[in-house]
Amino acid sequence: MLQPEEVIAILRERDELWETAPGLIGLRGRTRSLMERIACSLADVAHEETGGEWSVPPGISFETLERAQYFASFPQWLTAASHLSSDNDVLEKIATSSSPASAAKSAMERPGAALSPAVCYHTYEALAGQCVTSPTLMTAEGVCWRHEGDRLSPLERGWAFRMREIVCIGSDYYVEDFRQRWMIRAMDVARSFGLEPEMNLAADPFFAPTARGKAALQRMKALKHELIVRFPDGRTMAIASFNNHERFFGESFRISLVGRTTAASACVAFGIERWLLAVLAAHGVDAAWESARPTPTVEYAA
Amino acid sequence: MLQPEEVIAILRERDELWETAPGLIGLRGRTRSLMERIACSLADVAHEETGGEWSVPPGISFETLERAQYFASFPQWLTAASHLSSDNDVLEKIATSSSPASAAKSAMERPGAALSPAVCYHTYEALAGQCVTSPTLMTAEGVCWRHEGDRLSPLERGWAFRMREIVCIGSDYYVEDFRQRWMIRAMDVARSFGLEPEMNLAADPFFAPTARGKAALQRMKALKHELIVRFPDGRTMAIASFNNHERFFGESFRISLVGRTTAASACVAFGIERWLLAVLAAHGVDAAWESARPTPTVEYAA
Repeated sequence: MLQPEEVIAILRERDELWETAPGLIGLRGRTRSLMERIACSLADVAHEETGGEWSVPPGISFETLERAQYFASFPQWLTAASHLSSDNDVLEKIATSSSPASAAKSAMERPGAALSPAVCYHTYEALAGQCVTSPTLMTAEGVCWRHEGDRLSPLERGWAFRMREIVCIGSDYYVEDFRQRWMIRAMDVARSFGLEPEMNLAADPFFAPTARGKAALQRMKALKHELIVRFPDGRTMAIASFNNHERFFGESFRISLVGRTTAASACVAFGIERWLLAVLAAHGVDAAWESARPTPTVEYAA
Repeated sequence: MLQPEEVIAILRERDELWETAPGLIGLRGRTRSLMERIACSLADVAHEETGGEWSVPPGISFETLERAQYFASFPQWLTAASHLSSDNDVLEKIATSSSPASAAKSAMERPGAALSPAVCYHTYEALAGQCVTSPTLMTAEGVCWRHEGDRLSPLERGWAFRMREIVCIGSDYYVEDFRQRWMIRAMDVARSFGLEPEMNLAADPFFAPTARGKAALQRMKALKHELIVRFPDGRTMAIASFNNHERFFGESFRISLVGRTTAASACVAFGIERWLLAVLAAHGVDAAWESARPTPTVEYAA
């Protein structure tokens, strides 16, 4: 069992992990292959519950985030895609500058889109105003962006990271059943990778004070759990979360069930790089390749 | 054979394609599955030449783009990732604003990283200052961002799009041989999808006037070709490009060969969404699923 810092030091030494900017890493070699195997295993497990794989856009409209009350909840994380003016004089000044990178940084326009902070917002946006006839499930993997200031740590907390989500939209009872089933299923998947996970009650880091009450309520009603792994020094890292949103998104995006009740929703999210780090820490950077078995599909077949 | 506009209209009608913001699209259903099959086929073909699959970071440092003279060449396309200040007062003003999306748009900090405009820059950055002992090949698929103002068109010209690249670093002769081989190979792959591609001499849309001379030189020396498909109305679309950079990146990033010669480089790039559009236009949105065969691996085996 290794500490995350030890894993990262070895991967850097081997040129299997590098950083182009704070929080933005690339992977090569065996470590990259292992990450793909983990990502594929999680996709396979998701597909046993739903064939609804989506390719979500790499960004999301500000309007959708506003509708999801994102700015009141997590403004600290927001990352957006900005471009330069199309004005030729502005561009030429940058093109001919002796410090063009710095000149460009100072000349960005107001952003045209946000970079997705989570995959599931795309589901609510796509189903907005619709009536869902049966419980609707979708799954997608996407790159998510959350700015975490100086709390960045390779594989554990990136500015951008890969997230596999499974989203369920249905009745209040159906979505909670979905969430509970996945808490068990995810635990089994983690064990199949040789991890020793624990399930904890959790709360989102809602921005204070505007949304502070939400976290207390969330905890009281047990709406969020996290699957965590423990490193040798006792520090923990969440590798998956299980979230019941009640009717929050159903109301915000006017998604209804037959009979016109507002839909409830729940989602399960897996942080791919964190699974990779957990496997590397548990098995070592060499052993990992052999011992991290992809989840045997048969165990979860209907 | 369909026009791109006809394809897009049908996909929208079927909810298989949607747009969250201008130039940022998502895909579901059969169309998404077809795109994955195309992406996997292109990956398989790339892997017959190189096992060096990289996962490149989703952004890239401004410094690397400056080193690659990107700001003089294509400033018009630049897209960057910005975040908000971590100042609590700023965040609280946004969180409590009655128009938080608009407030957030106006409060973005200077960007911390650019969003990758191409995959291959990551290769030069990662190999900067190194001596390459034998021809080095890598391949990666990544999301690339290029802002094209109002020239956006779904699947054909996105603000963000998926690109599969194969990069070759070696001697002047080796990289040109690589490029020529791939021009033939890509043509075969396109034919295996039932497309009728043509190979054209091309030039990059370098920003004028700073880099205008580059395009003329590029064309004169036949350093860039594009594989194009033709729509019923005669309009063409490039689905792959084949680029010999000569020693430009080798010099900029000080990548050398044994014997201390500066390395040359070439890259081959496939626009995944454009391949999808080409297949849908050629076979129709229903027939496509059956008739678009993944590339038979055996044809390209050593």
